[in-house]
Amino acid sequence: MNDALQQVEALRLRDDARVPHDDRVIVEAPVALLYNGESFAVMMATPHALEDFALGFALSEGIVATPAEFRLVDVVRHEEGIALHAAIPQARFDALQERRRGMEGRSGCGLCGVESLQAALRPVPRVGASQAVALGDIRAALAMLAQRQPLNALSGGVHAAGFAHGGQLLVREDVGRHNALDKLIGALALHEPALAPADGFLVITSRASYEIVHKAATAGIGLVVAISAPTDLAIRTADDAGMTLAAFARGESVNVYTHCDRIRAK
Amino acid sequence: MNDALQQVEALRLRDDARVPHDDRVIVEAPVALLYNGESFAVMMATPHALEDFALGFALSEGIVATPAEFRLVDVVRHEEGIALHAAIPQARFDALQERRRGMEGRSGCGLCGVESLQAALRPVPRVGASQAVALGDIRAALAMLAQRQPLNALSGGVHAAGFAHGGQLLVREDVGRHNALDKLIGALALHEPALAPADGFLVITSRASYEIVHKAATAGIGLVVAISAPTDLAIRTADDAGMTLAAFARGESVNVYTHCDRIRAK
Repeated sequence: MNDALQQVEALRLRDDARVPHDDRVIVEAPVALLYNGESFAVMMATPHALEDFALGFALSEGIVATPAEFRLVDVVRHEEGIALHAAIPQARFDALQERRRGMEGRSGCGLCGVESLQAALRPVPRVGASQAVALGDIRAALAMLAQRQPLNALSGGVHAAGFAHGGQLLVREDVGRHNALDKLIGALALHEPALAPADGFLVITSRASYEIVHKAATAGIGLVVAISAPTDLAIRTADDAGMTLAAFARGESVNVYTHCDRIRAK
Repeated sequence: MNDALQQVEALRLRDDARVPHDDRVIVEAPVALLYNGESFAVMMATPHALEDFALGFALSEGIVATPAEFRLVDVVRHEEGIALHAAIPQARFDALQERRRGMEGRSGCGLCGVESLQAALRPVPRVGASQAVALGDIRAALAMLAQRQPLNALSGGVHAAGFAHGGQLLVREDVGRHNALDKLIGALALHEPALAPADGFLVITSRASYEIVHKAATAGIGLVVAISAPTDLAIRTADDAGMTLAAFARGESVNVYTHCDRIRAK
């Protein structure tokens, strides 16, 4: 928790009053993800639950297919940020290099940008069938999520992702919503290896964007419930993946946009 | 507006009721930014006010130093997304290629990830002095901002950035908070060329992250007011830039974290 929060001095202004007070704010730091010694990406993240993050990012981005393919070798704290060094199989590494070339938009028709656009919209895997969830269980998970955000309670502005299964909720927090989901996916694989992603559902404090849906589908999660709005691309991606996407999950109702069969009234 | 919103069918679940209804959701699409024919980045953005976005991104990322160095050559709509083609001076293009090599973490000590981390945390420019703003003017700008978000009012989950100057407010919206700020910075340069960034202040519906502060400082904005929480890195970056950073700007009070002198009570 100490790595995740920082105490700062603030001045609260209200009418004529200027009240100095101590504030706790969430930590945001560059976290570099290296595979077999090559830097792949740098994410601005909260340096907390970094083992979960490292594995979850690799799974949700399809860099590895299973936790067994991934080994966190080192966590190095530099002055500039944190480097997460992981080892992956050579075939996965080769595929990653290929993908990176696409993201850089250099090969083939890089001049028109189409390859970069295609790299941004990778095909989404189909999620498997899963048991229907009662609306009441979704509401219960959302109520639990609201109570299980210690970093957000202390600092504000922190996102949380929770995996609900059999009345339990596994939660991870981060300054970024994608990172919160990555940490959750990694935590599931590390700490609940007996649980399959199809055995529960995702609740998330943010909007449902393309990336949230894509990462959840890649991890095999069949039902995603977002507190805020969905985007059109998130809906289309969920539809393509065979995923149930619910959003605006506030108060008494939720809106379901795709594959409604995974939610039942009772 | 038609490019920014999409009508979809949703099912509203509430207790036993399942009510089909039409919902409007915000559009999220990959937008590739190309300079002199080379793809630099792909952002997930709302394809609305794209001219503002193209110029604002180039300014806020320090790709060009002035609007005169930037020319939007073409906006090409592909099936996969939108490509924004711009022309920039050769010296700026060379600097960008150099920076991209750093981001890829390949040169020098790429093996430890430090170069990637350094590329993620570029030095922030100092903002100039500017006149102090009354707390009442900040409240007035926030009240205006709440009324000036047509996309968010129709779809939810959309961020807005506003530039307040002399009782006026210029606003841009996007599914991403950084994009909303980029559109605003571009709109200022395109539509209010007589206004200097020091002549007003930024109000934004999101948190104050590192990137928001860095982009605003690069554009020359001296006072940033965020509705939600700041991060520790955003505060340190604002401090380094000589920028006034206020956050939690809700209700009657605001918290000021750096350089309080730009806000006065009356």
